[in-house]
Amino acid sequence: MTFENSGLFPLTAAVNEAGRLEIGGCDTVALAAEFGTPLYVYDEDTLRRMCREFVGEFASRYPDSLVAYASKAFLNPAIGRIALEEGLGLDVVSGGELALGRAIAFPPDLIYFHGNNKTLPELELALDYGVGRVVVDSFHELRMLDELAGSRGEVQDIMLRLSPGVDPHTHVHTTTGILDSKFGFSVETGHAALAIRQALTAPNLDLVGVHFHLGSPIFELEPFSIAIDTVLTFVSQFKDEGLELREFSPGGGFAIGYVREQPPPAVADYAQVIASATRGRCADLSLGTPRLVVEPGRSVVGRAGVALYSVGGTKDIPTVRRYVSLDGGMGDNIRPALYEARYEAVLASRMNESPEDTVTLVGKYCESGDVLIRDIELPTLAEGDVLAIPSSGAYAPPMSSNYNLNPRPAIVMVTDGDARLIRRRETFEDMMRTEVF
Amino acid sequence: MTFENSGLFPLTAAVNEAGRLEIGGCDTVALAAEFGTPLYVYDEDTLRRMCREFVGEFASRYPDSLVAYASKAFLNPAIGRIALEEGLGLDVVSGGELALGRAIAFPPDLIYFHGNNKTLPELELALDYGVGRVVVDSFHELRMLDELAGSRGEVQDIMLRLSPGVDPHTHVHTTTGILDSKFGFSVETGHAALAIRQALTAPNLDLVGVHFHLGSPIFELEPFSIAIDTVLTFVSQFKDEGLELREFSPGGGFAIGYVREQPPPAVADYAQVIASATRGRCADLSLGTPRLVVEPGRSVVGRAGVALYSVGGTKDIPTVRRYVSLDGGMGDNIRPALYEARYEAVLASRMNESPEDTVTLVGKYCESGDVLIRDIELPTLAEGDVLAIPSSGAYAPPMSSNYNLNPRPAIVMVTDGDARLIRRRETFEDMMRTEVF
Repeated sequence: MTFENSGLFPLTAAVNEAGRLEIGGCDTVALAAEFGTPLYVYDEDTLRRMCREFVGEFASRYPDSLVAYASKAFLNPAIGRIALEEGLGLDVVSGGELALGRAIAFPPDLIYFHGNNKTLPELELALDYGVGRVVVDSFHELRMLDELAGSRGEVQDIMLRLSPGVDPHTHVHTTTGILDSKFGFSVETGHAALAIRQALTAPNLDLVGVHFHLGSPIFELEPFSIAIDTVLTFVSQFKDEGLELREFSPGGGFAIGYVREQPPPAVADYAQVIASATRGRCADLSLGTPRLVVEPGRSVVGRAGVALYSVGGTKDIPTVRRYVSLDGGMGDNIRPALYEARYEAVLASRMNESPEDTVTLVGKYCESGDVLIRDIELPTLAEGDVLAIPSSGAYAPPMSSNYNLNPRPAIVMVTDGDARLIRRRETFEDMMRTEVF
Repeated sequence: MTFENSGLFPLTAAVNEAGRLEIGGCDTVALAAEFGTPLYVYDEDTLRRMCREFVGEFASRYPDSLVAYASKAFLNPAIGRIALEEGLGLDVVSGGELALGRAIAFPPDLIYFHGNNKTLPELELALDYGVGRVVVDSFHELRMLDELAGSRGEVQDIMLRLSPGVDPHTHVHTTTGILDSKFGFSVETGHAALAIRQALTAPNLDLVGVHFHLGSPIFELEPFSIAIDTVLTFVSQFKDEGLELREFSPGGGFAIGYVREQPPPAVADYAQVIASATRGRCADLSLGTPRLVVEPGRSVVGRAGVALYSVGGTKDIPTVRRYVSLDGGMGDNIRPALYEARYEAVLASRMNESPEDTVTLVGKYCESGDVLIRDIELPTLAEGDVLAIPSSGAYAPPMSSNYNLNPRPAIVMVTDGDARLIRRRETFEDMMRTEVF
């Protein structure tokens, strides 16, 4: 692949004088040597710039907007603090994500609590911390939360997650806004109308707005404008019943590039479509100007992260395939096995060499599905080479496992030539921590 | 589903007087209340009986046999100790699995160390502990291990993993013995011959035999006899060059039932085919009677484990689907999303009720692919019901993640009415343990 202008690497990525991949001013081969591999490297500049781009592009088009970082893409203390420092809110989907937000003192009023099946202990935790919005996803939750808030003598601000029935044309595993979905109240079936009426009359809930989410990653812009139109038109019917739309959240799902052939829209393009559709329809329908809440996750953190692996053995099967084994795999990044996700890779240790081989990069897990990249052209790889896979910042660490009892990787943040550990590598002892001996 | 005779539940599964599912004499609803959900429950009787069945069925047909438990299916201290007490060896595939074996003092001479890309530190760990056999998978490893053993003044017993080019007709992700595989030395390409010659002449390695593994789960018997024939015929060529076949390992991959429609062969049937093919071909080829090593994992532990979930909200989409949310999902069992694996389920809290609804059981993860079972007939489910998914003992806990920052489940072992925690539930603090604050 052409390294420059690929749009896949962090903004600070460069080839240094030693012919090695550099990120945030740090030589990735040196990082691999210092911290070990597999290693996930996050570029602070890219993270901050993506945060600022989202905040800026939305605010310039829709001043009363909030960008809430979707934690599920990857949340840890360092990432959460950067989101906070850059003026983002936080979208969490579990008690665990909420607890992490709390551990770094993320202001609760900026937290949006999502999820299709929040448990009672999770809702209690949310109320204990005073989260700004619970985004209610089912009648079960609506009742449970109303009772819980009532039992505490509180009124909880909520939004309702609606299911608009719009297909964003992404992987079936990550399409969420269609009719046949576990998420949200369907506009089409009448459940959304019922939920709005129940929420408006629930004594201990204050309905501040609605949310929808189409899926992820969404490479097209039109599904957003169609869904915004559908949902705003729908909610405008409830003005007479007392619904005042103070907040409106068309979710996230913004794409990033994983391979050169499929570049994502610019943040500005998403912002343009979403801001103009929201403002336009709100004006047409006399809905005022609700706060606009968008929830990027992958698009904030995906490009900032690069995975580094050390090359192990090569296995040639003449006329069939050349397998090159890396020291990570489906345990640290299950996306290729799970979604048939495609990635690119570069030989970080010898960036100036030309492709000579077509190889298949496999991991060290005892499973044939443990393939990171199938049939990629690279220079001839040798044992000990450091290989870098870009666009690895989102979902890989959060979905990582201890399969085969392999420890999960260390993670470093790089900036201005400095690398700091933001998550240490697991030890064998860590993996046994919950065992009863 | 018909609960009885399904072959899917632990051997001690029964319906108690309260109409609830009981395992190992323990009421599963009471277990859910005591330990919380999601909960993985392992039946000690089933585990021990499966161990004894493997040991007995093979030993009765081939006295010099060793059953090595394939840790990757699920290893923890309690499981490992049972395997040891029942006379099994241990098949490990990483430094982490080896470290766990060591932590419970599993005798090193009974440990077989597999894996396509063992790292130098892993091999050092193996030699430190004195593992019985390193099953070498690549030329890279052959060189590295020979050098390492030499540098320590030791001679390491090894086996070679061969790739026989036989298709066992399982999921493409878990098919390992075909030509186009990252595993083993291919017989067809000549690499197997080369590896045997290198191993025979390596000064610090003692080649005691060969291993192959076809994939998993394998529901057919014929691939075993074909592959045994192929591999023994192949290795017999090297007698003149000094290969004395002291051990022969046709791997594992034995199936279990996940759904009623696809029952697995009996252990006795696998044993019959493998023992008779091995003995027969060894006699024909004058290979003596090598020790026969088989490596069941899933088939030892799969049926012993049942996953318990609590029912949350129900979401009806008329004419389309009824979704019922559980409090676990793809984080504790990724197999449905990853392999399209199918499971059955029963309503543990009301076992005597008849199916009334067709529902889709989904988890609490923020992803549409988080479906545990699609379109299953069950009694009408209510919030707080306990649902049990059988055949959950293998691969679910090892592949579990902290996706969405959900803690991984607790695991209990039950026997004779007694339940003991064998892995405690993760806490939020556990999940933050490696974070740098």
